Amino acid sequence: MSSFFPVSLENLIDKLASLPGIGQKSAQRLAFYILSLDEASANAFADAIVQAKKSVSTCAVCQNLTDKEICPICSDPRRDEKTICVVSDPKDVIAIERGREYTGLYHVLHGVISPMNHVSPDDLKIKELVARVAEGEIEEVIMATNPDTEGETTARYISRLLKPFGTKVTRLAYGIPVGSNLEFADDATLMRALEGRREF
Amino acid sequence: MSSFFPVSLENLIDKLASLPGIGQKSAQRLAFYILSLDEASANAFADAIVQAKKSVSTCAVCQNLTDKEICPICSDPRRDEKTICVVSDPKDVIAIERGREYTGLYHVLHGVISPMNHVSPDDLKIKELVARVAEGEIEEVIMATNPDTEGETTARYISRLLKPFGTKVTRLAYGIPVGSNLEFADDATLMRALEGRREF
Repeated sequence: MSSFFPVSLENLIDKLASLPGIGQKSAQRLAFYILSLDEASANAFADAIVQAKKSVSTCAVCQNLTDKEICPICSDPRRDEKTICVVSDPKDVIAIERGREYTGLYHVLHGVISPMNHVSPDDLKIKELVARVAEGEIEEVIMATNPDTEGETTARYISRLLKPFGTKVTRLAYGIPVGSNLEFADDATLMRALEGRREF
Repeated sequence: MSSFFPVSLENLIDKLASLPGIGQKSAQRLAFYILSLDEASANAFADAIVQAKKSVSTCAVCQNLTDKEICPICSDPRRDEKTICVVSDPKDVIAIERGREYTGLYHVLHGVISPMNHVSPDDLKIKELVARVAEGEIEEVIMATNPDTEGETTARYISRLLKPFGTKVTRLAYGIPVGSNLEFADDATLMRALEGRREF
């Protein structure tokens, strides 16, 4: 279709179009933008990809992305080492850290169990979580996967796995988002908020 | 905000977020995707940027993107050298070539005159077009900028510039798109279609 472009431009467009959520038209637009950069900026862009891929790996303890052997959270002596918050993605760690309230450690699964997408428990960092809990020092594991079907399934699966160790396993509370309007809450959330009601 | 990511990952996210139409969230998603590639694929991606930037330049004649001194269209002896079709972007050349009907040459302006976006005639490849017409061999210049205000303004500006050379300057016909439905045509298009009506 766009075979009138030079080969190297075609190749760049193909690479960009292989990114998730980027179609052929967007890829063209991005490629033209990159060509419009001066050479130093274009090279810096390319270098950012190489450097990120080269230096970023996963923390040996919590599996979060890091450029060190052990990530800054796991190696921070002020964190509560007896609590692990289990999340599906690195960006969830950032969401929770933004609240500045949680002081425990994390465990990043890198996905959720999803038969539809061919993701089985073995594809996730579940073994590593079990190993951490098996050491016997963990008092509470907080499941903080997303409140959707796959997140729920993953949380239930893991909580069953951890049962034999006698560690307390909890789940984030469901309810009405702070600052939102009852009128706009969906039925499932409203039901969960009712179920989880507390005394003043 | 996302200062819990390793520096090199932050840097990659920043670079991706600097692309047009890519926000902070999409940039994160793309960066995670790139990190999920194996090292060879990530390096190939980076290399595609470097190679495209290094090898792609503009044709010395028509200003279209090419990896040669003179692009394949300008150097094709079967093309009609007396006709130039003026477009704003390289992708417009591809759109017209797809029709397989036009056999003349092109001239790519690389934009349109747009005071709002601080694009003046000097920022476009207009001088180069005038120089081609001034050589005296061109019989017709077809203005094929987009049928919007900026495209129109640019076409009018250029046609005035070319007037002294006595070359015929034409404009793409306006009208109802082939295969479309009158019902859905906007008023301006309908008016233009009426104005441009022809005898059977």
